[in-house]
Amino acid sequence: MGGRTRQQRTLPVIAEQAAGGGLLDRRMFLGSGLEIGGAALGAGALAAFVRPVWADSEAAGAMPPATPPWMLEPGKPFSNYGQPSSFENGVIRWISANPDVPGNGISWTPLHDLDGTITPNGLHFERHHNGWPEIDPAKHRLMIHGLVKRPLVFRVEDLLRYPMTSRLCFLECGGNSNAGWNPRPLQARVGYFHGLVSCSEWTGVALAILLDEAGIEPGARWLLAEGADAAAVSVTVPVSKALEDGFIALYQNGERIRPENGYPMRLLLPGFEGITHVKWLRRLKAVAAPMMTRDETAKYTELLPDGTARQFTFVMEAKSLITSPSPGMQLREAGLYEITGLAWSGRGRVARVEVSADGGASWAEAALQEPVLPACFTRFRIPWRWDGAPAVLMSRAVDETGYVQPARDVLVAKRGTQGYFHYNAIVSWGVSPEGDVGHVYA
Amino acid sequence: MGGRTRQQRTLPVIAEQAAGGGLLDRRMFLGSGLEIGGAALGAGALAAFVRPVWADSEAAGAMPPATPPWMLEPGKPFSNYGQPSSFENGVIRWISANPDVPGNGISWTPLHDLDGTITPNGLHFERHHNGWPEIDPAKHRLMIHGLVKRPLVFRVEDLLRYPMTSRLCFLECGGNSNAGWNPRPLQARVGYFHGLVSCSEWTGVALAILLDEAGIEPGARWLLAEGADAAAVSVTVPVSKALEDGFIALYQNGERIRPENGYPMRLLLPGFEGITHVKWLRRLKAVAAPMMTRDETAKYTELLPDGTARQFTFVMEAKSLITSPSPGMQLREAGLYEITGLAWSGRGRVARVEVSADGGASWAEAALQEPVLPACFTRFRIPWRWDGAPAVLMSRAVDETGYVQPARDVLVAKRGTQGYFHYNAIVSWGVSPEGDVGHVYA
Repeated sequence: MGGRTRQQRTLPVIAEQAAGGGLLDRRMFLGSGLEIGGAALGAGALAAFVRPVWADSEAAGAMPPATPPWMLEPGKPFSNYGQPSSFENGVIRWISANPDVPGNGISWTPLHDLDGTITPNGLHFERHHNGWPEIDPAKHRLMIHGLVKRPLVFRVEDLLRYPMTSRLCFLECGGNSNAGWNPRPLQARVGYFHGLVSCSEWTGVALAILLDEAGIEPGARWLLAEGADAAAVSVTVPVSKALEDGFIALYQNGERIRPENGYPMRLLLPGFEGITHVKWLRRLKAVAAPMMTRDETAKYTELLPDGTARQFTFVMEAKSLITSPSPGMQLREAGLYEITGLAWSGRGRVARVEVSADGGASWAEAALQEPVLPACFTRFRIPWRWDGAPAVLMSRAVDETGYVQPARDVLVAKRGTQGYFHYNAIVSWGVSPEGDVGHVYA
Repeated sequence: MGGRTRQQRTLPVIAEQAAGGGLLDRRMFLGSGLEIGGAALGAGALAAFVRPVWADSEAAGAMPPATPPWMLEPGKPFSNYGQPSSFENGVIRWISANPDVPGNGISWTPLHDLDGTITPNGLHFERHHNGWPEIDPAKHRLMIHGLVKRPLVFRVEDLLRYPMTSRLCFLECGGNSNAGWNPRPLQARVGYFHGLVSCSEWTGVALAILLDEAGIEPGARWLLAEGADAAAVSVTVPVSKALEDGFIALYQNGERIRPENGYPMRLLLPGFEGITHVKWLRRLKAVAAPMMTRDETAKYTELLPDGTARQFTFVMEAKSLITSPSPGMQLREAGLYEITGLAWSGRGRVARVEVSADGGASWAEAALQEPVLPACFTRFRIPWRWDGAPAVLMSRAVDETGYVQPARDVLVAKRGTQGYFHYNAIVSWGVSPEGDVGHVYA
């Protein structure tokens, strides 16, 4: 490497063993703009990271690589709206719908196939109670009524004229990861077990503005939110949350919201459980107390060991997951790997993520991808040298309130196993000597 | 509004006339978390913002709105990969391709239809020189060779094992906005004039790691980057930039890069002009000096008034655009509107955006949507009370280096009108008394 460029950027020394089981210093591979120090690595010092493909017989005989066939013919034309490569047609939402009621069920975001923090709109998870309605935006109305000085009805075009706000945030179903309550660990790809959570940039109109315009009455402490689907999904949410940072979302990742995510509009309450982000929102009724709708009583409440139920458990607590390596992947040989995953908290920013490669005996802090935003996916990464022996990988999120993601036995002791919702325990992956990755309770 | 909730969040007083022509204080509608002060507005004080739809005769007779037909039948089923609403099928990339060489041309991001900062993958602009190749990722290779101690060839699966980094950043064609050099103002939707720029979260492997592994020689100051399309697009870029923050991108907005954006991998050099982000990247050759390829000589150089040419003008300078209101939109009546748009700079963060509603006679500072990131779209917003008189709207970006987006006459005086590339002058929209918005040179 040239002296000039070496001065501009040097890679840090590998700090051996940030924790047991081969975890290395999180700063090992960090890019510029982050604190780095120490002497530059000599060429080849990192070569242990990947097997020496440069000596791969197929490739070595073609240096430069032989001209591939797709360079020998004109390429394909422009398109008005692009789609993924046909070679990626296995990267899909996995559908788990009720065979007797096809519109009732879920589809999962394939977290194991994704990287970064944004979920592309086509892969945002779905939870429908009676399918998704195909709404003509010219005929849709949003009403704000109940305990207000002036009931208001908005057309979509009216809301589009209002001032907007954008927010990158996660959206998680209260029932996500609930196979974690099972007595034995479910063996599934991580997205098809924990993928009822996605992350988008949502843009819309602050409820503070709309509620100010309607003039809500002093006694109005709750809002009934109703969707325009055939199930008329309805929940009551606190006015205080709506005023704090709630908004009516019209755009998702830049474009208008997709039909299965609430087109033409949905309620957005950052950090709250998914059911409260009512899709196809058609009315908000200001009321004095919760309405005890079906969707907040028969569902989305949690049976506790003493027979009582937790209810209105809106905030999604801190959680993290290792997305790679994860079940269904295989480590081809001992050597250097990057452990990466996602962390989030409905209470604010992720403060840190700790990773263990020895089943929780020791922990090392992972690097967090900037920017770290409140109620948003935060990507974490840490290098790991696998020695080929059995290993148990875990991650543990701590948020800015000091809340620590609990161990599974702690969560189960507190809430029993019949709660169904709000499972956020530490997740553990076992790695076999053959490099197979599976889900374990550790 | 209840006393309790009013304490939790109050809206700021409207500061009249932050600048001439009806521009109001940028904090007027800002959400929580931002500095707000003053007494709360009484209900109805904001009602001037939008026409009183609550009294709309169609809606007033249906309060709550009559049950729409889509609530009376089961909804549509889940999907493996979602698509936009059929009602949004006009939101497309506009294609301008060479009729004789259909793979040569561009397609434009419809900036006028979008909000927020992320561009959905299906709408990311395209610039192809000979169409896009359909690459089998199992057969694709990336070679690093030339002035290196050890040539390397990578399969896609090898790169996927490397440590990754994510970066939210814009990507802009050097030829974007070049109709601005025309003697008369082009009348077109803003995206179909300025939309060869998009913004994504890109994820991939830092070049600092790969070049360290290859061990580049002291004399290697440039990298030839070649794409695997039929045009074999090739440019040389500085090693210093590659080491600073360049990376091989494999993911775009969470999923693997789309074919038209370089599947299975492209070069990413944040803030540099689009041509350098070589798509379908198949080799990087370390060299001592620029290779003077066709794509950096016959194209992507700029003829100056004195007959010489600017070359290797990599950095995209600060720029901004008002996306709403913008040409093709109509203001239905005098009243309150939000002026919003996008600003970006290849040199770092946007420091501020100033907006004028009186053709540049006076300017007011717009609110910037957080987070403000380097070399990334930054959404700006400011409220505006239109009095129904003719108005000229402009925006002006200033970046953290102090660079100020130039007026058109200043830019033309400096660079002439034959440069074709790197047009970043202030853009002006004229509003007629009828509320029509058009492009003007002001």
